[in-house]
Amino acid sequence: MISIIAKNVVRPDQVEAYKTLARELVAETRKEKGCIAYALNQDLQDSTVLTFIERWDDQAAIDAHGKSAHFTRIVPMLGALKAAEGEVRLYREVD
Amino acid sequence: MISIIAKNVVRPDQVEAYKTLARELVAETRKEKGCIAYALNQDLQDSTVLTFIERWDDQAAIDAHGKSAHFTRIVPMLGALKAAEGEVRLYREVD
Repeated sequence: MISIIAKNVVRPDQVEAYKTLARELVAETRKEKGCIAYALNQDLQDSTVLTFIERWDDQAAIDAHGKSAHFTRIVPMLGALKAAEGEVRLYREVD
Repeated sequence: MISIIAKNVVRPDQVEAYKTLARELVAETRKEKGCIAYALNQDLQDSTVLTFIERWDDQAAIDAHGKSAHFTRIVPMLGALKAAEGEVRLYREVD
């Protein structure tokens, strides 16, 4: 099992547009094989920080997600709304 | 429901010590009222990045966690093993 924390910093005037686009990405991604959890989260202290908290079966599922029609269509649109570079990290749980 | 992503950057020679201490914190925290999920995760690309991915019922549960005997005892010991400032963010899921 692999978790992904993908933090994004969005232009203040584009936060609502980001959330609207992300809703479609979330709905489609949750149907994917190997997707255990996938949700957009908003920072309680800074509403421009929007972070995907994800959990996947394995690297193959993550690779397939990156090639999916919804990912390749929506993620570049989300990227155009960013105010700064984000951070994507893949994690394995420590036993 | 509130998620916490608490990222820590640990001195390379202290990674195993950090994991050992964190195991006790994880075990005790999971017994707390209002704790839905609490796990330490290690970055797959950088083994010195160790991040707690947490989920809590509400702010009251988080406040109680911060005052718990295991938190006030173990977290300062973990802090002594850090190589750099980490990042703690509280999130609410976007509907």
